[in-house]
Amino acid sequence: MKKFVNDPRQFVPEMLTGIQLASGGALDYDPRYNLIYRADAPNDNKVSIIQGSGSGHEPAHTMIVGKGMLDGACPGDVFAGPPVEFVYETSKLLYSPKGILHLVNNYTGDRTAWEMAKEMCEADGMKVGALLVDDDVAVKDSTWTVGRRGVAGNFFVIKATGAASENGAELEELVRIGEKVIASVRSMGIALTSCTPPERGTPLFEIGDDEMEVGIGIHGEPGRERVKLASADEIVDILLDAVVPDLPYSSGDEVALMVNGLGGTPISEQYLLYGIAHRKLADQGISVFRSYVGEYCTSLDMAGASLTLLKVDDELKELLLAPAEVSNRIF
Amino acid sequence: MKKFVNDPRQFVPEMLTGIQLASGGALDYDPRYNLIYRADAPNDNKVSIIQGSGSGHEPAHTMIVGKGMLDGACPGDVFAGPPVEFVYETSKLLYSPKGILHLVNNYTGDRTAWEMAKEMCEADGMKVGALLVDDDVAVKDSTWTVGRRGVAGNFFVIKATGAASENGAELEELVRIGEKVIASVRSMGIALTSCTPPERGTPLFEIGDDEMEVGIGIHGEPGRERVKLASADEIVDILLDAVVPDLPYSSGDEVALMVNGLGGTPISEQYLLYGIAHRKLADQGISVFRSYVGEYCTSLDMAGASLTLLKVDDELKELLLAPAEVSNRIF
Repeated sequence: MKKFVNDPRQFVPEMLTGIQLASGGALDYDPRYNLIYRADAPNDNKVSIIQGSGSGHEPAHTMIVGKGMLDGACPGDVFAGPPVEFVYETSKLLYSPKGILHLVNNYTGDRTAWEMAKEMCEADGMKVGALLVDDDVAVKDSTWTVGRRGVAGNFFVIKATGAASENGAELEELVRIGEKVIASVRSMGIALTSCTPPERGTPLFEIGDDEMEVGIGIHGEPGRERVKLASADEIVDILLDAVVPDLPYSSGDEVALMVNGLGGTPISEQYLLYGIAHRKLADQGISVFRSYVGEYCTSLDMAGASLTLLKVDDELKELLLAPAEVSNRIF
Repeated sequence: MKKFVNDPRQFVPEMLTGIQLASGGALDYDPRYNLIYRADAPNDNKVSIIQGSGSGHEPAHTMIVGKGMLDGACPGDVFAGPPVEFVYETSKLLYSPKGILHLVNNYTGDRTAWEMAKEMCEADGMKVGALLVDDDVAVKDSTWTVGRRGVAGNFFVIKATGAASENGAELEELVRIGEKVIASVRSMGIALTSCTPPERGTPLFEIGDDEMEVGIGIHGEPGRERVKLASADEIVDILLDAVVPDLPYSSGDEVALMVNGLGGTPISEQYLLYGIAHRKLADQGISVFRSYVGEYCTSLDMAGASLTLLKVDDELKELLLAPAEVSNRIF
């Protein structure tokens, strides 16, 4: 295993310590619940928004905590949903009189924890909203999931609800906005290599030097099919042919287009894919309102990429363009 | 070779096309010179700043063109410095009456092209300043380089001079600021794996499953030594023990601390390294003014990381905090 790691069992806490230290005081870290949260949360004037699935998908979600994004993230260990206790205690710590919004990616383990915690919070008299993200068109009812999986499209749910919550939107309004994003966003990914969880120390699955996995899950779950490695043009065709007809996105639509690296693919290749996808969408009459290229939701060191489309209207455009601040910044 | 690529000979132009398309009109692309430049450049009220070494180091430098950063970047092919013609023609296209600043990383191929182009520009009556970046403490007079190599510390030269040029600073002032950054910045990197240039199709060098290269060059050049894979703690010690005494950085100093991923290392590991480095510096009385974690100067898909320290004073702090915009953004 070729990783920067000390004791693999301390991988997540040591990463979270780094996130807190890099934040310049903007974030706090509570090691009891793997919790990274805004130092100024909870804020009585805004609904708190929290998420937390498995670790190993960074920057999702611990690195996108900040103004205009999440108020806190309480992930489980690598590729493991958070225990109920993490979600319940985080909800209590970050609870605002305006309520709290739970963002959940659709995996059975995550759902179980978040639904049980929500019931516990409500039994305590807390006002809790919940959104279930399931943007991955690759497969339904696969390993670990009933229904579709939640992947990189989750970023847009955070961005839109995070912006609205900064503007003082009520919990019901945030749920409406989030459901609109979820109804408008679709994704699919392709893996060129496997990935290696630190505690396991060996690749999660085997894949041939001339193969790729179409519709890969972000925990290495099987996708639609294992096929021969194809050119970048062919790969973008495979992704668009799955994503575009699913909503469907149609000529005249404006979209946010995201090419998301899965962790081991360099940004040069991500931009190459982006250019191809942008042009192919233009050929179909679908225009890009705003581009997103980089790592948003990864699978540790997996070489691969996913493509996400979000159909935008005036309301979503404004929310996407609203300012946001996270510690995982360039400057 | 497991890459997202069509014809490997078109790797760089296809990537540059993607950068331009992703910019939403902020950037233009001139395929004659691999040139990505600000759509509003040249600007008569500011010195133009350009760079261009080999491709394969993205986001350096084509993805950090924008307001407060570079006005243009004209890289050569993967790991090959730009031809003289690229630099000369880019200088003419982006020339401002206030002059033009050439940023050059210290590699023999790059220097030859930039120095010859500077002479040609000056023969045309253009006012040209030049800065030579050589922050890598690993080795001197190595493969491809006389003196020290220029690596990720280059980001801070761009950030500081880019901010000052937006404020209307004259060329001589930018050279002074750039030289101050160069005199205050030091870096070193460690590679866990090799990297694969698209046209070559095979790894650039061999490295054992239990080995790492200390002081790696960003083109895979040998560093100080090939040693057994060590823990993250030990790796940070190796890097700090090389970088800190070089300037030297001393108790009481304030620094910008950068952990730079080399392309194939996930951001989770980069933050883990960051946390360790931040704490070890604090133990030496060196405090972090601002953190930089992510990919700044890569080597294609190499797994590895480098550490950069920049000693800051009030002037540099203000320049680091000044606003900047690039297409390679999160939001």
